[in-house]
Amino acid sequence: MSHTDIAVPDGVNNSLNIAISADGTAEVGRTYQIPARCGVAVRLARGQVLHIVNPSGSQVCDFFAFAAACLHEHLSMAHLHTSLASLFPKVGDALVSNQRRPLLTITADTSPGVHDTVIACCDHARYRELGCEGYHDNCADNLRMALMAIGLKAPLIPAPFNIWMNVPVQADGSTSFQPPVARAGDCISLRAEVELIAVMSACPQDITPVNGAGVSPDILAFRVSAS
Amino acid sequence: MSHTDIAVPDGVNNSLNIAISADGTAEVGRTYQIPARCGVAVRLARGQVLHIVNPSGSQVCDFFAFAAACLHEHLSMAHLHTSLASLFPKVGDALVSNQRRPLLTITADTSPGVHDTVIACCDHARYRELGCEGYHDNCADNLRMALMAIGLKAPLIPAPFNIWMNVPVQADGSTSFQPPVARAGDCISLRAEVELIAVMSACPQDITPVNGAGVSPDILAFRVSAS
Repeated sequence: MSHTDIAVPDGVNNSLNIAISADGTAEVGRTYQIPARCGVAVRLARGQVLHIVNPSGSQVCDFFAFAAACLHEHLSMAHLHTSLASLFPKVGDALVSNQRRPLLTITADTSPGVHDTVIACCDHARYRELGCEGYHDNCADNLRMALMAIGLKAPLIPAPFNIWMNVPVQADGSTSFQPPVARAGDCISLRAEVELIAVMSACPQDITPVNGAGVSPDILAFRVSAS
Repeated sequence: MSHTDIAVPDGVNNSLNIAISADGTAEVGRTYQIPARCGVAVRLARGQVLHIVNPSGSQVCDFFAFAAACLHEHLSMAHLHTSLASLFPKVGDALVSNQRRPLLTITADTSPGVHDTVIACCDHARYRELGCEGYHDNCADNLRMALMAIGLKAPLIPAPFNIWMNVPVQADGSTSFQPPVARAGDCISLRAEVELIAVMSACPQDITPVNGAGVSPDILAFRVSAS
């Protein structure tokens, strides 16, 4: 399948209908739920902190961020690897863009801190590979739809920050998909260093154990605080 | 620096003037040289093999590929990590696109096989970070210019396949930039599985030892064979 317009999803789900407001601005302090298998966008002012909660402990959040001033500037894992000299960001680390500018800083993380930065988000092609015949919810489309729901278009599908995704990397470079090691209620907090649009997708992967050994995609929750 | 048009380089070098032909088609069997610090595009028919040679042994090739039918389909390291279950491709492996389609297969590699798939290509922002004040040649711009030189526009700057770039990954995920371990004259061969545009940039990094302890960017060479 070849996109002439990269912003158009391969299929649709309820992500199109669950924007938290017309432009993605959140009510400070309010807790929002992300339905299982869906994506939601949130607009963050500089200095605001986004707290993402994993109610089940077993759910992965595919996380994307774009500078509000120009969506072509986006969180980039390949650039992050250079700035951190590591594959694994931790509390205190800045998460940089493809312009090598810090977009967010991890200010807190109650989980064991196991997150992935090397694996692409799931997409229509991934589920075809895994044997699905019809449409399967996927994080690439959730990103597209979450942006459409607040009137924006994805200019590309960046490699995501896969929060709670457990992909150990062995000394020989080999990788594997393992169940998350987070605990129910774990929370990661990300401070916006510029005005940005963050998108969180509650990963709908239900074939590999990315979202737990039970392969049952679950909800996520989030709230925004002023600092 | 924020690009409204991602295809426009931050500065220019001779990459604009060294296209091997109007549309990037190579003369089969002819050896072409890539000047130090520059990028060149080559159009490959399905089944043709691209042989990239490292005359000095110490030069990194930032490698990109786009499906000729739609440049939005491009070689993707994040998707490759899923398809290979590894960070390190080897002879026999297919290199997939963001549509999870094999674009190329590594058919031979006379080098020790140490290549990188996690680090972003160098760009204007990287050299500013490293203290450069004026314009510095960079692989992102070399990609843009190599495509412009054959009448195309880069729709994005994908994370590259960094051929001969030596970035060991430790068990804790930490990375470091080490000199290449290739030998003078080493060659990697890549078979095109679809018609595609490949771009090779002779990485101009002369501050970190990416291109050898002597930090002296050098030439690369290539030729195309029918099979």
